[in-house]
Amino acid sequence: MPVNLAAPDPKSLHPVPGVFLGVTAANIRKPDRQDLLVIRLADGAKVAGMFTQNRFCAAPVVVARQHLSMLDPSASFRALVVNTGNANAGTGKDGLAHARQTCADLAKLLGCTAVQVLPFSTGVIMEPLPVERIAAGLPACIAGLREDNWLSAAQAIMTTDTLPKAASRQVRIGYANVTITGIAKGAGMIHPNMATMLGFIATDARLSLPLLKSAATHSAKRSFNCITVDGDTSTNDAFMLIASGQAEMNELTDARSPEFIALRDAVTQVATQLAQAIVRDGEGATKFITIRVDGGHAEDECRKIGFAIAHSPLVKTAFFASDPNLGRILAAIGHAGVTDLDVEKLELYLDDVLVARHGGRNPGYLEADGQRVMKQNEITVRVVLNRGNISATLWTCDLSHDYVSINADYRS
Amino acid sequence: MPVNLAAPDPKSLHPVPGVFLGVTAANIRKPDRQDLLVIRLADGAKVAGMFTQNRFCAAPVVVARQHLSMLDPSASFRALVVNTGNANAGTGKDGLAHARQTCADLAKLLGCTAVQVLPFSTGVIMEPLPVERIAAGLPACIAGLREDNWLSAAQAIMTTDTLPKAASRQVRIGYANVTITGIAKGAGMIHPNMATMLGFIATDARLSLPLLKSAATHSAKRSFNCITVDGDTSTNDAFMLIASGQAEMNELTDARSPEFIALRDAVTQVATQLAQAIVRDGEGATKFITIRVDGGHAEDECRKIGFAIAHSPLVKTAFFASDPNLGRILAAIGHAGVTDLDVEKLELYLDDVLVARHGGRNPGYLEADGQRVMKQNEITVRVVLNRGNISATLWTCDLSHDYVSINADYRS
Repeated sequence: MPVNLAAPDPKSLHPVPGVFLGVTAANIRKPDRQDLLVIRLADGAKVAGMFTQNRFCAAPVVVARQHLSMLDPSASFRALVVNTGNANAGTGKDGLAHARQTCADLAKLLGCTAVQVLPFSTGVIMEPLPVERIAAGLPACIAGLREDNWLSAAQAIMTTDTLPKAASRQVRIGYANVTITGIAKGAGMIHPNMATMLGFIATDARLSLPLLKSAATHSAKRSFNCITVDGDTSTNDAFMLIASGQAEMNELTDARSPEFIALRDAVTQVATQLAQAIVRDGEGATKFITIRVDGGHAEDECRKIGFAIAHSPLVKTAFFASDPNLGRILAAIGHAGVTDLDVEKLELYLDDVLVARHGGRNPGYLEADGQRVMKQNEITVRVVLNRGNISATLWTCDLSHDYVSINADYRS
Repeated sequence: MPVNLAAPDPKSLHPVPGVFLGVTAANIRKPDRQDLLVIRLADGAKVAGMFTQNRFCAAPVVVARQHLSMLDPSASFRALVVNTGNANAGTGKDGLAHARQTCADLAKLLGCTAVQVLPFSTGVIMEPLPVERIAAGLPACIAGLREDNWLSAAQAIMTTDTLPKAASRQVRIGYANVTITGIAKGAGMIHPNMATMLGFIATDARLSLPLLKSAATHSAKRSFNCITVDGDTSTNDAFMLIASGQAEMNELTDARSPEFIALRDAVTQVATQLAQAIVRDGEGATKFITIRVDGGHAEDECRKIGFAIAHSPLVKTAFFASDPNLGRILAAIGHAGVTDLDVEKLELYLDDVLVARHGGRNPGYLEADGQRVMKQNEITVRVVLNRGNISATLWTCDLSHDYVSINADYRS
């Protein structure tokens, strides 16, 4: 059961002019489920994005990176193609050929070049991608292309997700009413870096490519990268920001303009909602945990401490048990690798309850107060370092029996 | 059920002349269980050791470190005192006072100074240490001091361990027959760095303090530190090597002498057996996994890759499920943080089965072969980097439902 997450209302997902989505059941791994998505872009669309830093990155990641760097700036991307059921990772040279073949197949159908197509895959690693089934499924995707198809798209990219993830928002940018709509998929959450995270956000805003890249970096850093450690490190992780440029507005080119900042912040809000939805639907999750580290010297140390807490299986099982076993949080902070940390100065809060300070338990702390907070299904752990004014906020979930069941059974 | 581990036969645990062990039930946390151990050392004994690097290190770690650095070289350590049930960690200034009080209480009973006593604790974090109960239990420990009491000592330091861990060995050093006997406790194994690991090994060999320190470092690096990441990082981890000096031999002072190397290697064998026993009895463990990384440029990169595999919950649940989901191992290698890793050159073996090479699945690999290995309860994962001649070997276990149960219930 996801934590405070519902399937999105399709009416809440505003179409993005110039962005068309079509899905089909291509039988990639399981019969009769939608497992193939084509996102077709109107002429003139721009795409910026970020990929996993994993050394064993998947073939589609290699190919998409190449296409993003190769495309002549005078041309534009025409489509993205996403399959579930097979990650096309750890597949060597054949995998690269398969990813390129898929792009070529779709390009032929759309009348563009293969370089104008970006491929994405998620699913089981080290199995050959069934390219023929993907090729056979593409015409049905194209036949079904619609601007109001975001919910179906969100469903088609799910793996062990229990609910589709989509978010949408409209903002006024100057005189234009601009739409931002996105979808994402997540899954394994104990170390989110090991699960494939895919996110696609589109807007009809008009902005220059440098600004689009800047908005992608800014929003990912405050959303998807706050549920991931060491950058993006699964084999297939990708986040793409698309701008169709169909809104009636002048192209934004100034990174300091209030218009760009408004757009960037709206993209960040959609990205954050998607990132949090991934955690809420984390494998086996029963609690949604916000970890906020305040009063640091630098963002890096705040994130290190936050992730040390977020990744500790001892902390995560204590959350699952609703047990205010706070020593486990202190131990995680202590081994975060911040070698000059002064534990005497540090404060630890569970929501509003001051649990520890001066290197030990707060004398006024009552176990009953800790228990009250731990029983909630949304909990904020706040660490105050008291040595600077930098903060970082991360999100994670607990570690339950269901996590083990889901991951022990995933391939069967 | 531990993996291929039995309770040690008390007859196999050779007494170490000059090292006396006494235990009692001091009711520290649970009634009627042995939870307090005193190790009394004959005059002239030397102690060297290593402690956790955790910034939230426990009070006894702070005090033991101080005593090790403060003791006048002309004096010698007279006792170690170890309690379970309470870690005396995250306890601030009171915790330090409690650890010192325990040393003073024992020193008074033994007629030595508090600085000649080293304290150790393991158990729940952030609860006040019940010093009065420990003080009340010390006389019974002293009354029961015996040289042939190693098994009781191993039992007294257990927490969630299901079996006591002890190992012993005798070696010929020159004309002397030297004994090396040790005990250890472990527990949580998914990230062993978060569980308290205590290890105490004693020998009657005579050697200089620098050589004792060298043997402690050498043996820990090849044993306890191969089941732990980032050095020793729980709040309480400690490994102590004791030399009573009672064997009839000349003091060893040359680090390159064959006598010292023979002793050091025998200590390493005992330490390795204890370290492996900790993994075999890992919380919820059903499999014992050896991870060997060969052909590296440097030990650091071999260990990084090994630990990335050992710490991946996705890999560990796949072992639990006996599922040769090998892509998860490749993904873990890829996110180990070895940024110049050439995945094309790398080979992955499960025991003798070549699973992956050239960045993808070995064309000759049959799933049935992978399955055969994964069904075993002892498995070796071997990664060959093919870029140097350095190796590292680590040990870990799988992640099972019982791990979650044990850690969700630990405080109740």
